[in-house]
Amino acid sequence: MKRKFLGIDIGGTNIRAKVISGEGTTLGERKTRSDARMGISRLMENLAGLIEGFAGEGVSAIGIGIPGIVDRASGTLVQAPNIANTRNFPFTEALSEKIGAATPVFIENDASCAALGEYRAGAGRGSNSMIMITLGTGFGGGIILDGRLWTGESGFAGELGHMTINPLGPPCAGGGRGCIETYVSQVAIKRIVREHPELREKLADAEDEALPERLAELAREKDQAAISVWNDFGTNLGVGISILVNILDVKTVVVGGGLSGAWELFIGKALEEAETRCLGGAKRGLQVKRAALGDDAGALGACYVAESGLGGRP
Amino acid sequence: MKRKFLGIDIGGTNIRAKVISGEGTTLGERKTRSDARMGISRLMENLAGLIEGFAGEGVSAIGIGIPGIVDRASGTLVQAPNIANTRNFPFTEALSEKIGAATPVFIENDASCAALGEYRAGAGRGSNSMIMITLGTGFGGGIILDGRLWTGESGFAGELGHMTINPLGPPCAGGGRGCIETYVSQVAIKRIVREHPELREKLADAEDEALPERLAELAREKDQAAISVWNDFGTNLGVGISILVNILDVKTVVVGGGLSGAWELFIGKALEEAETRCLGGAKRGLQVKRAALGDDAGALGACYVAESGLGGRP
Repeated sequence: MKRKFLGIDIGGTNIRAKVISGEGTTLGERKTRSDARMGISRLMENLAGLIEGFAGEGVSAIGIGIPGIVDRASGTLVQAPNIANTRNFPFTEALSEKIGAATPVFIENDASCAALGEYRAGAGRGSNSMIMITLGTGFGGGIILDGRLWTGESGFAGELGHMTINPLGPPCAGGGRGCIETYVSQVAIKRIVREHPELREKLADAEDEALPERLAELAREKDQAAISVWNDFGTNLGVGISILVNILDVKTVVVGGGLSGAWELFIGKALEEAETRCLGGAKRGLQVKRAALGDDAGALGACYVAESGLGGRP
Repeated sequence: MKRKFLGIDIGGTNIRAKVISGEGTTLGERKTRSDARMGISRLMENLAGLIEGFAGEGVSAIGIGIPGIVDRASGTLVQAPNIANTRNFPFTEALSEKIGAATPVFIENDASCAALGEYRAGAGRGSNSMIMITLGTGFGGGIILDGRLWTGESGFAGELGHMTINPLGPPCAGGGRGCIETYVSQVAIKRIVREHPELREKLADAEDEALPERLAELAREKDQAAISVWNDFGTNLGVGISILVNILDVKTVVVGGGLSGAWELFIGKALEEAETRCLGGAKRGLQVKRAALGDDAGALGACYVAESGLGGRP
């Protein structure tokens, strides 16, 4: 019997699911609300309901990408700032009990799933090693070295947003100052606009979520202040790329996340800055690519987590 | 027959060699001049002479740490800024011909060898993954992930000195500005002293090489300006450690190199800064240790390169 894998991506708003064949073809997709902020029990209910919808598919394993720190071996969700009441929650055990099926469940961090998705089926396809940068509310990421996710000694690797790029810069939620996340993220855009009298006025009616897109529109209408914000955004992104490339000598950097919608407004400056700061050998052959899978990357990556959980390709 | 490995560390001034048994016991040591700046032919002569001295040992393989970029598979020295006339030099082939022996020769970058030495027999002993920071003329390093050297996709990984920590900082030889090497290295100490009227005068008679040690003496004599330079040195080192730990989640960081002689003058500030900037999960269990092997790390690491070249422990 041919194997099928179910991959699930838990977001703050939605849960997205995908079933793929062992050859990687998408056989089905579903989406439901996550209600993650309402707590873990509600989330588990929604998750079980979603999985039930695939009951007829006969999947071999389930992979789940969760916005938090996971202990892969024990299936524990160690912590998840955006899901209420979760500290050391026995995720796979609780879910298996709830769905009452023997299908093996494997969990992974959501950013790592997105990185895996892009690596195997998106912009990173064909590469050996890859760094994924996700520009969303924060500055997230995932690192794939020689075909394997590098998750670190305690599962926390890939916190790319907390590279300091200016020790005296703005304070960061992580405790530091001048982390790249304080310059290159939705949170950063919000701060920069707020501190800019002219832009603050022009964008006074924009909701936080819509702010980057509105700022991008302004820049496309040739507003000089908006263009300058995106230029700086690109320059700082380029600094971050150079730090990663000089440390790891990885030739494929994929940039995704909601803010990558403003791609043409920042990528030129980012490449220019990376070119200046990367050492000769490390930058030879370097490719900085736009993520190709959008919101699909996480669920697809979760399918691969299921596959590798069963001993398939890592 | 029990196996023995010869490890050789090529420095700017000296070549150091060590023979170890398969169990890791040191069986012999030798040192000679490298004359690296006089060019590759002279260096090969010196190297062959040194190896000849071990002819009676019957070593199974030779490992060589070279200050440059190496292509391990082909045994080519791709580039070495401090050895004249070397670009794509067929190192292992030329050396084998010169010594006229069938003993296999393996090459590695010198900083990587030092990292391997500390990892297996020094301050990193017993760790799973380790980051080595070498504070010498520049800010060098090596990365060991899950027991293996991570050398990158083109052999350039571990260029830790070129993490930007201040985009508008002093210009760096690598092309960037404000790389950590411009704040935390012998080159940096030289610049800082030169820009400081009071210290410049106090240390006017110190040679470049001796400057860090002289500055350390001043600080130990409670000179406030000197203390303040070492405090900043430590703070900037802590920023660098936090960048590496947040990206890679590695729990063992080993700091060595000549400037680590001023350990007690900078390590307090370094730990304080790293503590502030590392994320909670990544810093749990983090250990920042002083390198234990001094100048022996490179030759010992080169012995391990020889061992792993023959298919032994990586």
